[in-house]
Amino acid sequence: MNTPDPAPVHPAWLPPEAFRAIGGRRTLVCGEGLLVQTVYDEVAQACARYGGTVTRQRVGAGTGGRAGASGGPYDLVLALGTGGPLPAGAAEVVAEAAGPGPDADGDELGPEGFALVRRHGVTVVLADEPAGLLYGLFEVVRLGAAAFGADRPARRHRPAMRLRLVSHWDNVDVHPRMGQVERGYAGGSIFWRDGAPRHDAERVRGYARLLAACGFNAMTVNNVNVHGTATRLLTDRLDDVAEIAELVRPYGIRVHLSVNFAAPVALGELPTADPLDGDVRAWWAKAARRLHETIPDLGGFMVKADSEGQPGPYRYGRSHADGANMLADALAPYGGVVHWRAFVYNHHQDWRDRSVDRARAAYDHFTPFDGQFRENVILQVKHGPMDFQVREPVSPVLAAMPRTRLAVEVQATQEYTGQQRHVCYLGPSWSEVLRFAPWGEDGPTVASVVAGTTGHGAPTPSTGGDLPAPAGGGIVVVSNVGDDHYWTGHPLAQANLYAVGRLGWAPDLDPVAVLDEWIELTFTPSATGDPELLRGTLHALLDDSWHTYERYTAPLGVGFMVRPNTHYGPDVDGYEYSRWGTYHFADRDGVGVDRTRATGTGFTGQYPQPWADRYESLERCPDELLLFFHHVPYQHVLQSGSTVIQHIYDSHFAGAEEVAGMARRWAGIAGSGLVDPALHARVTERLAEQLRSAEEWRDKINTYFLRKSGVPDAHDRPIY
Amino acid sequence: MNTPDPAPVHPAWLPPEAFRAIGGRRTLVCGEGLLVQTVYDEVAQACARYGGTVTRQRVGAGTGGRAGASGGPYDLVLALGTGGPLPAGAAEVVAEAAGPGPDADGDELGPEGFALVRRHGVTVVLADEPAGLLYGLFEVVRLGAAAFGADRPARRHRPAMRLRLVSHWDNVDVHPRMGQVERGYAGGSIFWRDGAPRHDAERVRGYARLLAACGFNAMTVNNVNVHGTATRLLTDRLDDVAEIAELVRPYGIRVHLSVNFAAPVALGELPTADPLDGDVRAWWAKAARRLHETIPDLGGFMVKADSEGQPGPYRYGRSHADGANMLADALAPYGGVVHWRAFVYNHHQDWRDRSVDRARAAYDHFTPFDGQFRENVILQVKHGPMDFQVREPVSPVLAAMPRTRLAVEVQATQEYTGQQRHVCYLGPSWSEVLRFAPWGEDGPTVASVVAGTTGHGAPTPSTGGDLPAPAGGGIVVVSNVGDDHYWTGHPLAQANLYAVGRLGWAPDLDPVAVLDEWIELTFTPSATGDPELLRGTLHALLDDSWHTYERYTAPLGVGFMVRPNTHYGPDVDGYEYSRWGTYHFADRDGVGVDRTRATGTGFTGQYPQPWADRYESLERCPDELLLFFHHVPYQHVLQSGSTVIQHIYDSHFAGAEEVAGMARRWAGIAGSGLVDPALHARVTERLAEQLRSAEEWRDKINTYFLRKSGVPDAHDRPIY
Repeated sequence: MNTPDPAPVHPAWLPPEAFRAIGGRRTLVCGEGLLVQTVYDEVAQACARYGGTVTRQRVGAGTGGRAGASGGPYDLVLALGTGGPLPAGAAEVVAEAAGPGPDADGDELGPEGFALVRRHGVTVVLADEPAGLLYGLFEVVRLGAAAFGADRPARRHRPAMRLRLVSHWDNVDVHPRMGQVERGYAGGSIFWRDGAPRHDAERVRGYARLLAACGFNAMTVNNVNVHGTATRLLTDRLDDVAEIAELVRPYGIRVHLSVNFAAPVALGELPTADPLDGDVRAWWAKAARRLHETIPDLGGFMVKADSEGQPGPYRYGRSHADGANMLADALAPYGGVVHWRAFVYNHHQDWRDRSVDRARAAYDHFTPFDGQFRENVILQVKHGPMDFQVREPVSPVLAAMPRTRLAVEVQATQEYTGQQRHVCYLGPSWSEVLRFAPWGEDGPTVASVVAGTTGHGAPTPSTGGDLPAPAGGGIVVVSNVGDDHYWTGHPLAQANLYAVGRLGWAPDLDPVAVLDEWIELTFTPSATGDPELLRGTLHALLDDSWHTYERYTAPLGVGFMVRPNTHYGPDVDGYEYSRWGTYHFADRDGVGVDRTRATGTGFTGQYPQPWADRYESLERCPDELLLFFHHVPYQHVLQSGSTVIQHIYDSHFAGAEEVAGMARRWAGIAGSGLVDPALHARVTERLAEQLRSAEEWRDKINTYFLRKSGVPDAHDRPIY
Repeated sequence: MNTPDPAPVHPAWLPPEAFRAIGGRRTLVCGEGLLVQTVYDEVAQACARYGGTVTRQRVGAGTGGRAGASGGPYDLVLALGTGGPLPAGAAEVVAEAAGPGPDADGDELGPEGFALVRRHGVTVVLADEPAGLLYGLFEVVRLGAAAFGADRPARRHRPAMRLRLVSHWDNVDVHPRMGQVERGYAGGSIFWRDGAPRHDAERVRGYARLLAACGFNAMTVNNVNVHGTATRLLTDRLDDVAEIAELVRPYGIRVHLSVNFAAPVALGELPTADPLDGDVRAWWAKAARRLHETIPDLGGFMVKADSEGQPGPYRYGRSHADGANMLADALAPYGGVVHWRAFVYNHHQDWRDRSVDRARAAYDHFTPFDGQFRENVILQVKHGPMDFQVREPVSPVLAAMPRTRLAVEVQATQEYTGQQRHVCYLGPSWSEVLRFAPWGEDGPTVASVVAGTTGHGAPTPSTGGDLPAPAGGGIVVVSNVGDDHYWTGHPLAQANLYAVGRLGWAPDLDPVAVLDEWIELTFTPSATGDPELLRGTLHALLDDSWHTYERYTAPLGVGFMVRPNTHYGPDVDGYEYSRWGTYHFADRDGVGVDRTRATGTGFTGQYPQPWADRYESLERCPDELLLFFHHVPYQHVLQSGSTVIQHIYDSHFAGAEEVAGMARRWAGIAGSGLVDPALHARVTERLAEQLRSAEEWRDKINTYFLRKSGVPDAHDRPIY
């Protein structure tokens, strides 16, 4: 069954060296269960390499304390619960970790939390459930030697969001246009090849381990556009899913399945997929039962319905609530959830009709149904109202459905952000989304909304008052991983997957600090030479790379100036006269989309205050979103003091120049031994393409706007 | 071997009814040979249907005159040569047909010519060679009952061009992007499917028959971009070609083969394809020998070299003459020719560099080699300097290589002219090209240059004086045929293939008269109802459809405002900032490409007088090519009296309105019995798409230029 790729897979943020601090010490692992076994195996593997010892103590397995090879005491104790006997030295530290009782907000450690403390030369990780122990182990890995240094007061760690899911747009059959992985920029799928499972157990297991180490706990294994063979994963190809579930389960990853809403019809079993039809409901109930018989911990379904040609309840005159609830009812007996995507809009829009605004679509479609979804329905909302552009405002849906479980969806695969040929570290972008406070500075953030930890901050039209928070829906991340040697095509794009996992666990983390963790884990252990030079170089390339990408591409939040279909490279009018609802309305006088209530599409009215008014105001709308909300003359003066047209020129020259600087900086560590030469070469090659592309963007955008506006560059730089 | 498509193939311009006049009469066929047998079989088939008789008389087969079922005399005599005995009544008419001896210009009837005369109630076709008899038969078919009416004085018919070749861009393997037929809009290939021959003998034979009936005598069977299996047609897949050659030979069609210049390397047999390398030359000589052993009448090779990524002599530091001559030497012993395409340009152009002009490329690349090509090399020149746009000037190469055999290449497959979803009868466009007189009104035409019947009209820089004409290269037509039921997707697109065949035979024909022939053959015989209504409707749809298409698409010769890759539908800037050398340079002040000698790329200087000066002159340049040669302000006044911007608006409104009129007109004959209802429905469906597309063109082009120019429409029509 196992046919691994001949090329070894890159260890990413879990190279053996990252376990050095643990592997050289004496560890006790206490507890039982699959994930505790994983913890034990990880430590044992490290010890085999670095000469340490690991002792396994099962609950009630003995008096403890003398089972280890070295006869105790231990440097590290990883203990599940407090029911079992513990070695003398560890017991009191554990007691400290366990105290001071339940958290202030009333919760226990929960199913994934852990406490970490160091005292009397012993580091203790304590968890209530096996998953917590696993996450605790990876926290120790992250700390490295520091985990065994000075004392550390007890600190509890719990994920902010219960569901942290990686969504794979992997096709089972090769799609004629989209290929094996839709919007994949890292080779083939790690799960599927040409309509069949790859059976590459090694790679899938390694992937699950990486996901767990940065905080994920769920994944879908197939594209949200479900066609052909993928439809049958529900039925006669279910074993293919079970095989993956089996491989990822030891790392606490639950598998979810993307399903075709019209599966009963597509599979030829029923004449309708009407969600209110009794036969259809029975069909799904039976499918769910069979699924959970085969995969008892199946997480649930993900559904793209009535979107971009996918079937859905509209076909039968039913609502999204009808559709989602039917699937939710089928899954409810087994604890499964339905991720129902809010990415619904008219993709056959007439560009001539300016009254239609795609940005409004998700809000208009879904907010009327707030409160009507089952408790196990999660409405999955893209972070912005359009589609993963480099800069969008936060989707107003995230602040408008107080009685609905919401998840925020972000895109690690760099569809619109350089397709893993460009360095574009998206941690800061996602951090901005998660920290965004829809009701103003002191109100709840998007992170707390999707975590389900706070209610909405202000009355909304649909409720008239504050409500208790619904259970959280968490974060969904479109994966950037494929069967490429580096997992992500561009080696530095690994940072995006790592970062978004960490931000899902702890949205308050500083994305630059997260990057530092990633650098420390991934590169530092094996580097020879000056680690600070390496760290400095990587930070110089990555920290501001999202802003750099923004500078040389579509300006001031306008978006979609990309080549149709591929979404790579500039094409200013590529989506201007199209059916996709993605326009900039540039003419000889000005540019931007008027989405104000006063004179435009009224989209600003979908936000609560203060944003409804701030976005509405030409003076107070943030510069970086100006053209998303307003159509302005080229000579409009930004808050920055520059004009729109001069900002376009300046930012594009600056962005391309920054890429040139990144390439120079990277070239500076060639031959230094700081990174593997093959990895250095791969990044060098991609930086060359990024520079070529950035210059192409610069020149096309500048030329387009010079030709249209007639306003010369104040600094007389070359524009064509 | 024969696996015909289950759907019957449309008879196109050879329905059985077209043979009614012959089939009901008494015919004598005299002569021997494969093509004479074809003539006999055609007549016999018609007689079987309509009750006439046909008599076969071989040379020396008897005294003649009494062999027929009716015992003579005959209504029609189709006779090869005058050597054999003829029936009494026919002999004197034949004598008249044979006289008055050789033509004024010194030639005999030649290998494909025939004489036609009617006298004393007998119609006689006389030919020197079997092919002439076949063409004569089809002339009688075209004449129908009129061939048997009043007396007709003897008239000689000879094709203007010796080579009239249909070029198939059919891939043997399915190309991942281009499919089975590159730029094919009529289904799959009639020759190939998924890397293998289709063995659809019926269809291929039927196709050869249609080609012969409109005047073609050659075809290539594979795409000029030669990849994968197609490369091996030269070697171990040669039998696949031989099978096709066998099927088309009875209709006088010779097969040519598109070859990969790097075949010796691609097939893994040699390390180089250097045309001056002895082993390479020997390899091709051997390949040619093997080819001609298998297919003795193989016409030769067609080569796309050093063009759009295809390999060629440049790779080895050799010239196009070196490359072409090597292949010519290999073919010379067998009388084969090399069609060497002049479509060579830099397809990685930097749009920022305005000094490069793709229009100049073919002239710049090839004219230095005038006189250096072997006699069996034909330089195949696209009719315009760019690439089959709806409007281009004639390529100056056609007037600049007096010592080179030239063929003109035109495109029946409607890549840039509506892709057989739009009605666009290209006869008038090709007629303009063929009648174009590069040296002024009284000089030779393009038709005479490629026919090889006249020398160049004026001294050129490379010769310093008049030269005798080289042998002609003829006309090459990119086929619009596929395995669609109607052959061409759009049933009315059949007219294009018919017309270009006829124009290759007789370039002076009026394209509207040719259309009339096509209507008469294709529709009239089977129509019930008023034939004049049908004829009027078809003329109304087709006659001016090329101009209609021009009106609603790219204005004033500017070209290439199409969607990249697919080339269907409008995208004004689609090719503006690309590597393809296809720009319009529209800005807020004006539009067009300055190709003058005075201030532009100097392309006008590639033309002889008077065109060099006429195109150079802003005042005298024909309106329809203004933007091809000049960059002008939007308010520039055309010779028509309109401004450029108002012309853009007016022509786009008019073009779309004309399409609406076409659709109404066609709807008017619904249910009339004038055409088959299925065909009516197909055309109706395509007209609906044409109208939708024409309105899309109208609105996008108008909106683009309104936004850019700021000049309102004088008639205040809706622009967005």
